[in-house]
Amino acid sequence: MEAGNGGAGATRWRISRPPANGAPLADAGSMSIRTVLGRVISSVDASGPRPVLALGSGDPTASACYRPPPEAEDAIVEALRSREHNGYSPTVGVLPARRAIAEYLSLDLPYQLSPDDIYLTSGCCQAIDVMISVLAQPGSNILLPKPGFPLYESRTMFSNLEARHFNLIPDRGWEADLESVESLADENTVAMVIINPSNPCGSVYSHDHLAKIAEIAKKLGIIIIADEVYDHLAFGNMPFIPMGVFADVVPVITVGSISKRWLVPGWRLGWIATCDPNGILKEAKVDKSIENYINITNDPATFIQAAVPQIIANTNDDYFNKILNLLRNSADLCYGKIKEIRGIKCPHKPEGSMFVMVKLDLSCLDDIQDDLDFCCRLAKEESVIVLPGSALGMKDWIRITFAMDVSTLENALERIKSFCQRHAKLEAQ
Amino acid sequence: MEAGNGGAGATRWRISRPPANGAPLADAGSMSIRTVLGRVISSVDASGPRPVLALGSGDPTASACYRPPPEAEDAIVEALRSREHNGYSPTVGVLPARRAIAEYLSLDLPYQLSPDDIYLTSGCCQAIDVMISVLAQPGSNILLPKPGFPLYESRTMFSNLEARHFNLIPDRGWEADLESVESLADENTVAMVIINPSNPCGSVYSHDHLAKIAEIAKKLGIIIIADEVYDHLAFGNMPFIPMGVFADVVPVITVGSISKRWLVPGWRLGWIATCDPNGILKEAKVDKSIENYINITNDPATFIQAAVPQIIANTNDDYFNKILNLLRNSADLCYGKIKEIRGIKCPHKPEGSMFVMVKLDLSCLDDIQDDLDFCCRLAKEESVIVLPGSALGMKDWIRITFAMDVSTLENALERIKSFCQRHAKLEAQ
Repeated sequence: MEAGNGGAGATRWRISRPPANGAPLADAGSMSIRTVLGRVISSVDASGPRPVLALGSGDPTASACYRPPPEAEDAIVEALRSREHNGYSPTVGVLPARRAIAEYLSLDLPYQLSPDDIYLTSGCCQAIDVMISVLAQPGSNILLPKPGFPLYESRTMFSNLEARHFNLIPDRGWEADLESVESLADENTVAMVIINPSNPCGSVYSHDHLAKIAEIAKKLGIIIIADEVYDHLAFGNMPFIPMGVFADVVPVITVGSISKRWLVPGWRLGWIATCDPNGILKEAKVDKSIENYINITNDPATFIQAAVPQIIANTNDDYFNKILNLLRNSADLCYGKIKEIRGIKCPHKPEGSMFVMVKLDLSCLDDIQDDLDFCCRLAKEESVIVLPGSALGMKDWIRITFAMDVSTLENALERIKSFCQRHAKLEAQ
Repeated sequence: MEAGNGGAGATRWRISRPPANGAPLADAGSMSIRTVLGRVISSVDASGPRPVLALGSGDPTASACYRPPPEAEDAIVEALRSREHNGYSPTVGVLPARRAIAEYLSLDLPYQLSPDDIYLTSGCCQAIDVMISVLAQPGSNILLPKPGFPLYESRTMFSNLEARHFNLIPDRGWEADLESVESLADENTVAMVIINPSNPCGSVYSHDHLAKIAEIAKKLGIIIIADEVYDHLAFGNMPFIPMGVFADVVPVITVGSISKRWLVPGWRLGWIATCDPNGILKEAKVDKSIENYINITNDPATFIQAAVPQIIANTNDDYFNKILNLLRNSADLCYGKIKEIRGIKCPHKPEGSMFVMVKLDLSCLDDIQDDLDFCCRLAKEESVIVLPGSALGMKDWIRITFAMDVSTLENALERIKSFCQRHAKLEAQ
């Protein structure tokens, strides 16, 4: 900008007194994955000869093999060209899309969701925003998995809701430590969050474990927010089972989106589904609270909403199976390669989502301080981006995204291997 | 939904104790225009023979004459078909769109905005959400116009920011009552909001009035949030002048979108522009606060962002002029017809936006309690929807949207005339 006439120089602008919205906003915002990745990416040596290989975020759309189905693209074009969906949508979303999502989710449930159970959101992120905002009350707390997805931390911090963390146990396939859940909950606990298939762990929970979670929640009297944004991205032995299957035991609020299964994270179309066959959420007026909050937030683009029925109806199993095969091969490759690298360890082979959590063995690595240091130096020396585990509550771990074409993944893992070899402690070599 | 096994019946669910998020959320959500319009629309006699004529919201896309330019549609299709914009965008928005908006806004400014001054939002609504959230601090207050846009009330209430209202004066072309602005502001005032062209008043402020607003704001040391979502929709004698013209006097944060000028409210593409040639906002780290908050909110769809440069570049003046002519004709028609109707009065001929504020003369109308009663009975008896002024802070006024095809508007105004005649007090007839 060019400078103005400077006439405002003498004024004491009130905005400049305390930092706008104080520390909570700054802290909340600085915890986002994109912020942390930004720090790592800024370490890349821009003059380096090799292309940057990004294994940091859950967005595989840069790889040509992870393209959305053409049918989904066609559905968007058709909705747009109809010129019938340029106006505002109802705040809860357009009815045909709510109905299509209700039917889609009901395929895997022992009861039928109605369109009234579905609220369209601008991606799963807004679904999380809505649910945290709706549940936040002074003095209340929420149980979050550790490691987890940092947006939950950011939104709870912004809403002055206390976050309490239960551990996911690496050696038990990242199952939730249910004993710690019991000890953490108290009368002010409003909900617990279960992310399955897991970001960041790559795990998929068994029917048995989900049933135990439901029983614990029922015993404690707390509802479950089931983050199933990676729904159906299960490529190991364990099938994907929605938490909503157990909604006759515990009220479940499922959040999801088309972002991951259809590989369109940038389309920003997600949902909240109240899985409430016993009417407990309705009785507590949670549905009204969601509506009230959604009334003062923004909506997904109307023509994208309008395309949802076609997107769901026209995408066939061949497409989904192709993507699952790609993910399975990449996960196998990733897990196998990591085994060969001294200095990092993977306790559990990924069987879902797009990620694997990898533990740093700093005792084998010379002059690496911690996970952030590891990631920044890896970025600088090898132009490979991975996410520091501390962004997810797991210091000295890293999260690797394996959803990319095989050659890029192999190349990246080779570079990580070189990096670890170069930084190996002498006595450990 | 089918009932579950009822096994949860005995549990005391904690969610059911206090109302979720208490009164503020319920109050904030119930104030939205869509909620109030929903109440009015529910009064319509569904068995009535005539089509419902909707003059309630700022969404003219139902009328065939208010279509977006084909070039804008083509830009979206091209961005989508490129398959390069399916992934996440940077939280601040994609650079080409930020650059295009900076250049677009700078055309009317005496200095040049940089892409770094622009933050893309999911419509202007999210821009408002962001600015209120960023500015809210315990004990602080914000000055809002009355009548105004209720989302400001909702978001300030949700953020525990105190709203203080200054009047817009009907007989002075809805200019702001600047004396009351001075008396309302105190050391905890963080900003004042100016909506120009005005929703709901249909007024367009003169250079002189905007200059006075800037001087008052400077004197008080408070920044201006300039809501210019109706930018360039000025069809009377007064040209549209952006508040940013005065940003060398007072820091201005402009919020806007493509929703109104390009007639695509459902595309959800808006922006925040920091007009800050003296660097005052930057020094107060307002830019960082915006970035922090945007990091934990959702973004507009990436392919819609990517289309923005083409949308702006390819839409020509013929299109804009055609829309201005339509609006001018409709405004003239509306103003003329209202003059003929006993029981309602329009103090100022609309010269911008899509609205006119109309005062009910209840002394002429028999058995009408207030504006809400007027609107609900008009909906029931005549199938015409207009917005009760109390939703905008103006009891016993109504807001009429005139942006629609002429025959629908004429028909609706005839029905309003019939309604007023039927309800006229005998002595007044």
